[in-house]
Amino acid sequence: MQTSDSLPRIVVLGAGFAGLTFCQKFPRNLARVTIIDRQNHHLFQPLLYQVATATLSGPDIAQPIRSILSDHPDIEVRMSEVQSIDLKAKKVILAKGEVAYDYLVIGLGGVTSYFGRPDWAQFAPGLKSLDEALALRRETLLAYERAETEADPAARDALLTTVVVGGGPTGVEMAGALAELARTVIDEDFRHIDPKKTRVLLVEAGPRLLPMFPEALSASAKLQLEKLGVEVLVASMVKDIRKGEVELPTQTIRSANIIWAAGVAANPLTRSLGIEIDRGGRIKVQPDLSLPGYPEVLAVGDVVSLVDVNGVTVPGVAPAALQMGGYAAKLIAKELKDGKGARAPFAYHDKGSLATIGRSSGIAKIGKLQFSGFFAWFAWLIIHLLFLVGFRSKVSVLTHWVYNYFTYKRGTRLVTGMDPVVAKPAPKQS
Amino acid sequence: MQTSDSLPRIVVLGAGFAGLTFCQKFPRNLARVTIIDRQNHHLFQPLLYQVATATLSGPDIAQPIRSILSDHPDIEVRMSEVQSIDLKAKKVILAKGEVAYDYLVIGLGGVTSYFGRPDWAQFAPGLKSLDEALALRRETLLAYERAETEADPAARDALLTTVVVGGGPTGVEMAGALAELARTVIDEDFRHIDPKKTRVLLVEAGPRLLPMFPEALSASAKLQLEKLGVEVLVASMVKDIRKGEVELPTQTIRSANIIWAAGVAANPLTRSLGIEIDRGGRIKVQPDLSLPGYPEVLAVGDVVSLVDVNGVTVPGVAPAALQMGGYAAKLIAKELKDGKGARAPFAYHDKGSLATIGRSSGIAKIGKLQFSGFFAWFAWLIIHLLFLVGFRSKVSVLTHWVYNYFTYKRGTRLVTGMDPVVAKPAPKQS
Repeated sequence: MQTSDSLPRIVVLGAGFAGLTFCQKFPRNLARVTIIDRQNHHLFQPLLYQVATATLSGPDIAQPIRSILSDHPDIEVRMSEVQSIDLKAKKVILAKGEVAYDYLVIGLGGVTSYFGRPDWAQFAPGLKSLDEALALRRETLLAYERAETEADPAARDALLTTVVVGGGPTGVEMAGALAELARTVIDEDFRHIDPKKTRVLLVEAGPRLLPMFPEALSASAKLQLEKLGVEVLVASMVKDIRKGEVELPTQTIRSANIIWAAGVAANPLTRSLGIEIDRGGRIKVQPDLSLPGYPEVLAVGDVVSLVDVNGVTVPGVAPAALQMGGYAAKLIAKELKDGKGARAPFAYHDKGSLATIGRSSGIAKIGKLQFSGFFAWFAWLIIHLLFLVGFRSKVSVLTHWVYNYFTYKRGTRLVTGMDPVVAKPAPKQS
Repeated sequence: MQTSDSLPRIVVLGAGFAGLTFCQKFPRNLARVTIIDRQNHHLFQPLLYQVATATLSGPDIAQPIRSILSDHPDIEVRMSEVQSIDLKAKKVILAKGEVAYDYLVIGLGGVTSYFGRPDWAQFAPGLKSLDEALALRRETLLAYERAETEADPAARDALLTTVVVGGGPTGVEMAGALAELARTVIDEDFRHIDPKKTRVLLVEAGPRLLPMFPEALSASAKLQLEKLGVEVLVASMVKDIRKGEVELPTQTIRSANIIWAAGVAANPLTRSLGIEIDRGGRIKVQPDLSLPGYPEVLAVGDVVSLVDVNGVTVPGVAPAALQMGGYAAKLIAKELKDGKGARAPFAYHDKGSLATIGRSSGIAKIGKLQFSGFFAWFAWLIIHLLFLVGFRSKVSVLTHWVYNYFTYKRGTRLVTGMDPVVAKPAPKQS
């Protein structure tokens, strides 16, 4: 199955949007390509919050990498942890073994950043992986279960209070979905909790939500969230987070469920490269996405810090990652075919931004067009469905959305992950 | 939402087939019903092996108990662990608090039994909960990933060898599904593993597979399994299980993946009741399913040991649990309406047995009819779809089955549960 050993060797780190697009766009039989990821699946991160809020199941938004690339026989998939990169010796050191490369594509993505307070992580988990989303789903649902039998009113209020930190797209979408989950589920399914007692707070340090959108749309998003019952607190920098407690400038909120959606930084591996990075750990790449001094190494996706040839700061969003992956594939293919020459710089095309708020609302900015409400939500839905990898996922996600839209029910409201990993003959009590 | 305090109080332990059917069949406004389960979801156990073998996702076969019973406002759902039952004082002691009852319905189900060798559990997990199924899926997929890069041939062979212990329906269905998973997935998606090297062994202590079926169908099942590449070893009592190793009478097999499908016992709580139980911990109930001396306590489902009024030993299968749950609901409702009197005994109706073998084969015995092959599989499919709870699950499962049938792909091939439960800002390396 292996292609000839004489072909040049390309190693791709990370099977996110950027790395995977590289593999899909790169011509066949031109190189030996190896893609390496810590996970066995590609994750459709924009929909991760829907797993956390019990609308979608994990497999709906994750696809095995091997399966996505199964019709690329010259691409090898390795599930492994990257330990370090030796730029001088042109090789990647893995948890087990190492891989040499002629070209390297770094698409290692981002991690949750706590702005110098990593101790907050244990009290306010982020939302970057499937396991984090499933843990969040479990904790949210368990909080309701505990509230149902909690006698102490103050403790019950804390169990029914959720705080989302960070007013970017993830925070806004999480807060909207959580507010709807709380209302519909508690109203129908619980007997002792008063649905009016549930609180979802969205806390943002800056002066407004969604700063990447025009001000009018930010204001619309705030209004739509408030209609769903979310309490939006802007200009509220978090001072401290303790177990079950968020300290804000003017008040301290007791909450059983604190979610951190405030910060993203590049994979910390970038810090060990000896290359200039920005405050978020992103690599300051050349206009052709290469590392300064290493033209054979390109960075793509969320690890990149770049003001492009048109003066646009490339944002850390999925469309930018897709474009960079495609650009890198074209660039390396061209050099392998035509030999080295001058490289055309990368230019980011902003195709617009979308965010949903709850079950049937949202905001959209597409070119000069700005709109909000149902049509923004609908545009969001179509676009996300189109980009979702795998036919089966598309059908399954559409089924769940239609079901959720008409019934307001959340079918994947499962508490899992409480049993020990190695199964024991524990009494399956009830 | 609470119904009047003067109504009699019924407590149901366990939201399996029996307990849930009781709740669904019991008339409204006749009693205060509380159903208590350790999990927040009802699990459709007959399809659990399809989650373990990456055809279905967890939410496909699990439904929140509150959601199933949301249109029964007089039923209260409590997610809690049962500590003990005080039959004399008529109350159930929970991890937090206790509940008094006028009638008690015990549907606590079964646990994996290792026939006095609980130390085997760590090396050969069973398949009773969603968490166990997801762990099994992870370990199976990780074994292939490790085999792909394993240099030592003996170690690689062990990684590619799966041993299923127990030739009952669960073992047969697991072995068939695993053999197909190994062949199709490895053939398409891996580069270094030879699909011919994968082995799935099914080990049974008795003289034939599926002893509850007629001999001709057992023989057919064995043939069909062997066609899929399963090595069937009957009359092979397991002598010992160690880490990565199963010792049989005539050989010792190295295997990275040992699955225990050999034994089921009743929930161990039955041992503390001071009531006569059988070797598997099942309660020896009266003909009306009540506990001897406690007519207000009925046992239903897999905790029951009974030769019914027609001389039939009631088997530990889903249809029997459904029938017992319905019988108990009718019996208690009648007594609450008409006062106590003579009770009609429970009679089990055997509607037939089905088992699948791989993607499109199986065996069936329905009344006097016996058949195998495609039609047995198709009958199995229709019946399981009909009994699956929840419209959304039905559509989703059907989608996955159709997809799997035509593509041979397994869409839910995800390795999850490797991250710590509380999310840390661990480098999301690739």
